[in-house]
Amino acid sequence: MALITLTTDFGLSDPFVGIMKGVIAARAPGVPIIDVTHGVLPQQVLAGALVLQAAVPYFPPGTIHLAVVDPGVGGPRRPLCIETARGFLVGPDNGLLSLAAGDDTVRRIVHLTDERVFLAPRSHTFHGRDVFAPVAAALATGIPAAALGTEVSAFDRLSIPVVDVTERLLHGQVIYVDHFGNLATNVRLEHLRPWPGRRLTITVGGTRVDGLSATYGAVAAGEPLALVNSWGLLEIAVRDGSARATTGAQPGTPVVVEVGE
Amino acid sequence: MALITLTTDFGLSDPFVGIMKGVIAARAPGVPIIDVTHGVLPQQVLAGALVLQAAVPYFPPGTIHLAVVDPGVGGPRRPLCIETARGFLVGPDNGLLSLAAGDDTVRRIVHLTDERVFLAPRSHTFHGRDVFAPVAAALATGIPAAALGTEVSAFDRLSIPVVDVTERLLHGQVIYVDHFGNLATNVRLEHLRPWPGRRLTITVGGTRVDGLSATYGAVAAGEPLALVNSWGLLEIAVRDGSARATTGAQPGTPVVVEVGE
Amino acid sequence: MALITLTTDFGLSDPFVGIMKGVIAARAPGVPIIDVTHGVLPQQVLAGALVLQAAVPYFPPGTIHLAVVDPGVGGPRRPLCIETARGFLVGPDNGLLSLAAGDDTVRRIVHLTDERVFLAPRSHTFHGRDVFAPVAAALATGIPAAALGTEVSAFDRLSIPVVDVTERLLHGQVIYVDHFGNLATNVRLEHLRPWPGRRLTITVGGTRVDGLSATYGAVAAGEPLALVNSWGLLEIAVRDGSARATTGAQPGTPVVVEVGE
Repeated sequence: MALITLTTDFGLSDPFVGIMKGVIAARAPGVPIIDVTHGVLPQQVLAGALVLQAAVPYFPPGTIHLAVVDPGVGGPRRPLCIETARGFLVGPDNGLLSLAAGDDTVRRIVHLTDERVFLAPRSHTFHGRDVFAPVAAALATGIPAAALGTEVSAFDRLSIPVVDVTERLLHGQVIYVDHFGNLATNVRLEHLRPWPGRRLTITVGGTRVDGLSATYGAVAAGEPLALVNSWGLLEIAVRDGSARATTGAQPGTPVVVEVGE
Repeated sequence: MALITLTTDFGLSDPFVGIMKGVIAARAPGVPIIDVTHGVLPQQVLAGALVLQAAVPYFPPGTIHLAVVDPGVGGPRRPLCIETARGFLVGPDNGLLSLAAGDDTVRRIVHLTDERVFLAPRSHTFHGRDVFAPVAAALATGIPAAALGTEVSAFDRLSIPVVDVTERLLHGQVIYVDHFGNLATNVRLEHLRPWPGRRLTITVGGTRVDGLSATYGAVAAGEPLALVNSWGLLEIAVRDGSARATTGAQPGTPVVVEVGE
Repeated sequence: MALITLTTDFGLSDPFVGIMKGVIAARAPGVPIIDVTHGVLPQQVLAGALVLQAAVPYFPPGTIHLAVVDPGVGGPRRPLCIETARGFLVGPDNGLLSLAAGDDTVRRIVHLTDERVFLAPRSHTFHGRDVFAPVAAALATGIPAAALGTEVSAFDRLSIPVVDVTERLLHGQVIYVDHFGNLATNVRLEHLRPWPGRRLTITVGGTRVDGLSATYGAVAAGEPLALVNSWGLLEIAVRDGSARATTGAQPGTPVVVEVGE
């Protein structure tokens, strides 16, 4: 059975997401729709790409992932469907789909050009409703991606900022702040593997944390800690509190990891 | 297959919406439920009516639209089902359903009086749970609207504030502010049709915009623009920003459109 | 047909809830999932327990209620499934499930220990994804609770703060504040039954309300009122306003009910 997921920066206070679901329900009746999130910060393409990359592996093969964080809607950026070994990624060609696609075997990249599938008239401001929802519904009813446009050879790639490693110092940054105020960084478990058993000291926004914890409960309430989070990223948190509030950090804030002797 | 949508001002931080869905799941098992939005500003009936009007056309015929923005719950206002050519509108008779109903052919207006359908005991404060969810579930299982109460001849109508047109000046107002801070006005595409090709100057809250853009990307970042939005309404936006923050406007703030020579 | 509900403090701005749904969709395809709420205040176990207690009675028998408000994730607290006459409660053994379970006949308490059901590798920080979603999916596919771990004889119980009754004075407190700013208290309808027809005066945070109203519309706009809400709790509200804003009250704020002569 087909399954569609939605990831946007539309929020839930307006009817935009509901309207997209109406379009899907009208064109692909009975197909289940799951919200990944609609709380991506407005127009933050990197945050949307990270969210999609984190979510896709947990869905069944063949799932159709529709994503819209699209500051260039109505402009020259192409609407895209990337077919991978895992399923389909549908959205604007602005890097949003690239981290999820990059984790996987890409089978086909389709520039969505078949206007017969789109809603008519098509607005310049709401392609989630007029372009991407109809395309997701078409895929869900079994229309092949290749039939929805022109195959192209590449898509816009977005890269996570690189971690700078010099001697025993790693210079990274905060790349995602969650609802609890936890600070996820671009420092991955793999970056830390060369130094097994060494003491790490993590500094972000004036807050210094000694060592990695296994759980949020490993320190006293109100104390900061660092751990490798559920996405495999180094994260700074505050037990029963908010590391965002404590450190003032936000996406882009530098993080330094010092490897002990 | 039946389909139920929900539009309320209940927010998502409490279990109210989940409880309504529980009532529907218990009485109409397997019927899909789609949230239009639960983020209508508390007790803003006009905002709820606009949202419902914008969403209904995108859903399949026969959809049951349950809406609750109901400051008068428990008082004399009637619970209503309006059956139209498109489907069913279920909610309080306070104008909330009237804009969506007004766009369509009304077939039947039913004052919901059959207490056997309601939850018992029925609270005075949560008719979404006790009255409207059971009614939507009954409709979804095929019970005709006429069987749920008494036919009546009229419903409370809410009107969008009128645009005042004098010579080459249109005086309107902001009627809806979305999650991005975009300002939708009561000036419709139709209001602008008499002056094709003329230069328009739009003023709201001290901000002045020259001309209409086709897309949000047509101006530089941080600059204001005006366009006809996906609902067919004149909208003031700020590229990669918030027109609400820039102009201080909110629903009711005057908007002036000047038509050039 | 199986049905799964979700109640968490994860919020909707991150992909956490979507990822849990992905795990369920992969392991129990086609099983409907209903959100009770994800807006429980972070790590407020009592608020989560109240929400679950309020919602469970409205769902069909056999429903699987998955709840996660889990400040001790990864620590020694046990993952639990409580099977009752109504259905299944799945979540951490920290009191979160206890109010809902306490309203019902408990048939079986299972310490969830069968690691073959969990996601592997299992994180220390996201048991909603790695432990509880797989368990809910397993139950939804018909695996008996008893097969998922070890039966135990008790679970952690959380109690609602007791109302202190002396002569004609009831000393209670605010236990839940909703989206509208309404203040629900631990004073139940049953506490008020011994004094039928007597005038009640309710005081919270310097605001004094005389008498109980039947509906929110019973007083003038902006005026405070008290009523027995849809959960059977004494509630203080402000018509067309917010009692939280008016009184400054929050969970824990004392409430005094004086019974007149």
